[in-house]
Parts: sequence; C-alpha cells; structure tokens
Amino acid sequence: MTLPRIGVTPGDPGGIGLEIVVRTLARASALPPAAYILFADPGLVEAEERRLGLRLAARAWRTGSPAEAGVFLAAVPGPAGPPAIGRVSAENGEASFRAFETAVTEARGGRLEGLTTAPISKAAWALAGHPFRGHTEYLARFYPGAVMTFWSERLRIALLSHHRLLREAVAAVRKETLLELFRSLDRALKKLPGGPFRLLTAGLNPHAGEDGLLGREEEEEIRPAVDAAAAEGLPVTGPFPPDTIFKKALGERDAVVVALYHDQGLIAFKLEAFAEGVNATLGLPFARTSPVHGTAFEMAGKGVADARSMEEAVRLAAVFSASGS
Amino acid sequence: MTLPRIGVTPGDPGGIGLEIVVRTLARASALPPAAYILFADPGLVEAEERRLGLRLAARAWRTGSPAEAGVFLAAVPGPAGPPAIGRVSAENGEASFRAFETAVTEARGGRLEGLTTAPISKAAWALAGHPFRGHTEYLARFYPGAVMTFWSERLRIALLSHHRLLREAVAAVRKETLLELFRSLDRALKKLPGGPFRLLTAGLNPHAGEDGLLGREEEEEIRPAVDAAAAEGLPVTGPFPPDTIFKKALGERDAVVVALYHDQGLIAFKLEAFAEGVNATLGLPFARTSPVHGTAFEMAGKGVADARSMEEAVRLAAVFSASGS
Repeated sequence: MTLPRIGVTPGDPGGIGLEIVVRTLARASALPPAAYILFADPGLVEAEERRLGLRLAARAWRTGSPAEAGVFLAAVPGPAGPPAIGRVSAENGEASFRAFETAVTEARGGRLEGLTTAPISKAAWALAGHPFRGHTEYLARFYPGAVMTFWSERLRIALLSHHRLLREAVAAVRKETLLELFRSLDRALKKLPGGPFRLLTAGLNPHAGEDGLLGREEEEEIRPAVDAAAAEGLPVTGPFPPDTIFKKALGERDAVVVALYHDQGLIAFKLEAFAEGVNATLGLPFARTSPVHGTAFEMAGKGVADARSMEEAVRLAAVFSASGS
Repeated sequence: MTLPRIGVTPGDPGGIGLEIVVRTLARASALPPAAYILFADPGLVEAEERRLGLRLAARAWRTGSPAEAGVFLAAVPGPAGPPAIGRVSAENGEASFRAFETAVTEARGGRLEGLTTAPISKAAWALAGHPFRGHTEYLARFYPGAVMTFWSERLRIALLSHHRLLREAVAAVRKETLLELFRSLDRALKKLPGGPFRLLTAGLNPHAGEDGLLGREEEEEIRPAVDAAAAEGLPVTGPFPPDTIFKKALGERDAVVVALYHDQGLIAFKLEAFAEGVNATLGLPFARTSPVHGTAFEMAGKGVADARSMEEAVRLAAVFSASGS
C-alpha cells in the first residue's frame, strides 16, 4: 500500500494558522496513515512547539521522497525577524504566499497527493503584491475547472461562484456555466469515497422563482442546465427553494447541494458546521482542503484557537487522496 | 385585566391549515389566556374536529364583543361543496382570502388585538383574482411601514425585502430604505416584551464587501444607514459578514439580525427553526403572526401535520398583543 503525501501550509504568520497546524500534527497518530509534510519556517515551527508545549518530532522532507507515515518539515523561510501578530502585514503575506506556492509546485509536479492550507490574509497577499482573493483563486489559474465545496458530517455543498459581488454572482447564473459545474463536480465526486453522490441544485430567487412569479432565471437558465445534465446521465435535480433545500439535505449522506452564490451556500454551511466544517477544492489532480474559518487575528498568539476544522481538513485530504482523487 | 382577542384564519382549505388550527385551539387551555376567534366555515370546522377526534367547543363570536377566555367561531362561508384537497383551486383561494379579509377588517377596526394566519396558496389567490403574494403584502397596503420578522427561541430576524426577485432585492439595498426599516423596526420592537433589542445588520456581499474589494453597497448604502440610525440613538450595528452573523446571533436573546433579502434571512432561519419558528409582521396596530411553513398540500387530509409552528404563532400573537403591540 502506498501512503499519500499530504502537504500542509501554515497560512498567515499573524493569525492562528501555525497554532492549529501544530496542534493537529502533534496528534498525527490519530490521523489516517500518511506522510504529513509541513511547508514552514523551521524557527517558527520550533517556537510554536515550545509555546504550546507540543512536539511534532518532524523529520526533514526531501522533495520527491516516497511517503513514510509521520510528520515531515519542508523548510520555507518565513518573515525576516519575528512576525507581526494579530494584524495584516506585507511580510506575512509574502511568507504565507511563498509556503503555499512551494507546496502547490510540489503538488502540481505529482509529488504530493494532497494539500491542506491554513487560512491566509487576502489583504496581506494584496500588500505583498499577490492579487488573489484566496487559495482557490490561485489554483483556478492552473485548473479552471476547480470547484469550491464544503464538507461536514451532515451537510455538503458546492459553490457555482464564490468571492464575487452578489450583483455579479446573480448575473453569472447561466445555463452553460452551470452545466460545466455539474460535469466537473460529478467527475470529481465519482473519485471520492462515500459516493455515489447526488447533486441538489438550489434556485436563485425566493421560492425558486415560484413558477416565474418571482424570477426567470430558474426557468431560463437553471432548469435547462439541470435537464441537460440529467440527459447526460448525471444525478442532478432542482431547482429547489433556497430556503428549504439545505434543511432537506441535512443528514442525507449522498446529497451535495449546489449553491449559486457564496452566501447562499455559506450561510447554511457555517450555521450547521462552523467548528468542524472543511473546505475542499475538487477538480484538481490532487486533494486540497482547508478549514472554513479565517486567520482569526483577534485570537492569534493566545493559545486558545480551536483546531477542529484544521484537523478535519487534514483528515479529509488524507481520505480523499488515499482513494486517488 | 383585559384579555386580548386573537383572530385565527385557517388558510387554504386544500392544505394543512385547518388541521393545525384545530390541533392548536383544541389545547387552548395550554395557551396564554385570550379569546381565540376562528374565522372559518362552521361545517368545515366541525368536519375537521370529527376527523381528528378533537373538540374545540367553540362559542359563536359576536363582532366587537369584549374578550372572554376560550375559543370562539366567527362564521365565514367556505367553498361551495367539499373543498379540493391537496391542490390549487380558485374556490379555495377565494375562501381563504375571504376569511383573511374578514379578520383583517376586524383587526383594522380595533376589534382584535392580534391575528394569526395559517398558510394560504398564492397561486390559489391569483386564480381567484387576488394578486397579493401573501398575507404580508396585503397588510402592507394599509400599513406601508410593516416589517416581516421571524422569531424562534434562538434566532430572530427581520427582512428588508421579501418576495422580490434577487436581482431587484439587491438593487433595493439603499440607505434611505434601510434607515426607514431601522426606525420602524425599533419603534415596533420597543413595544414588545423581552427587550430592549439590538439590530445586527447583515452585509450584502461576501464578507460584507471586504472593505470594497467585493462590493460597494456596504460602504455606500449600508454603513451610512447604520451610522445615521446610530446617530439617532437607535441600537443598530453592522454591516457584518452574512455568512457568520446568524451564527453569532444564535442564542443572543436581545439580538435581531436585519437581513437584506428573503433567502439571506430565511436560509438561516429555516435551518435553525423550521419546526417551531414564527413569522410576525411588526409595525401594525395589532399583533400578526403565522407559521413559517406553507400549505403542505402533499400532507393535506392525512392527519399527520405538525402543529408546532402554528401553536407557537398563536402563542406569540397572544404574548405580543397582551403587551400592547
């Protein structure tokens, strides 16, 4: 049996990223067997271990090595000097970008089967001259079919669009775009354990347009896309009223709700699974996950961060990549 | 002590309305002391009592009578002949409209302190020539400052707009409109027990626009409205990221989340409180509540409807009107 190699990046040095990464990897024996490779600054990792009183016992990682179970460290330099804690800084942005880019290069080269990323600060990336709204947007440059999904015990969702103005997201609900999403999503889901999955498509307007009384997108764009997908044999239904479909999908283990804009999906997901939910980018040649929360600057450096979402993210990356996602 | 007079309308005769009304009023002794006056067809009420094996022991109501505790019946003729069950019909639409209009006339005349309405079918109203999208839209004709709110044990929300196309709802997020909502809502909330209440305003765009990166409405419309309201002494804050504000408000007994469009509020509310949530129209000279679910045609006539939301709606109308809402 070949173990998966899972890269882990610590996110913004000013946030809670490294803390939740160290908490998670310190209990690597409770995770699925894999090589967990932390892309981080060795000095910062050691300082964090000391601060938290935890030991990773990380071995040095050599790029392209075959996987052994355990925790490894791939050295990526952090900011010069101690990082600014609890605030946006260009140096921190540069450091988190560098670690992420290094890990992605490994993954793109086929030397990682999975990648889990702790939260970065988009504002810090912007200050450092990296104009991506997030990890997913960076990955979408290489993999235009990438789909943002969210996983928890009781609810799974996929987003048609994410970091877009609501006005633009509404205008982007088009038949062809949706049909592409259904195809990419179904192709990716077929490779995951726990399937087969069904796609339940939310409507855009109140009550899914109520037969045209409250909007035309359902009849002109969404239903035609669902029908076309179904005609290709994809397990897609909808559009369903947005305010009840998430409730209906709760606990249905084969259901993935397709949400048409960021908050439609994330209001439901974060209400249901804030502490332990996982963000997973599908449609890449490797598994990629992250926690659903952000950098939590206000909690940074206090040793009180909740690592559950990070731990579930690492676990899911291992599960997905072990099955050849 | 003067008891409140609470009107109750059974909604569409083809749905579960009369069933949940009879189930609720049959246990009137468990409700706050009030005169509960059912506006319905006596023959249909009697048939429903027989079918469910329940007894209302309703006395005939004389319009304008002072309140006595108990259940009363104000006769409003239903459809001619047995009503169509489980489907949209013009006759049912006419009947549910008639009962509602009769009760509203009593309430507008100051002869009811509260009104609880079981679900109607908008499609049936349309067939019968009554072009209102719901009870609230009808009431808004007389009371333009009416605000749709939703109440449950753990979450309370108010909607800036409800039955509007999402595209139009986005365009309607304007400073003046929001400020009017804050004022109406605050005025109405001050009359209710359980206060004082705080208003937490959701943003419109992902992450509440992220300082302009993801949308301008937050800075150009929402924040100015919040600031203007705060300058008038109203307890209003925001805009907050839509995907976390509902979670943050959960369990905060003095918090009311102001949602900017139908599904922003109702995705959260129905996920959190589907079975026992209550819709309450504020800003009227009487209390008005209804269950959050619809006619449930697929369940009609089977005797399996869940009356919890209806019961909570009647209870809330009594609580609100007893305190002079």
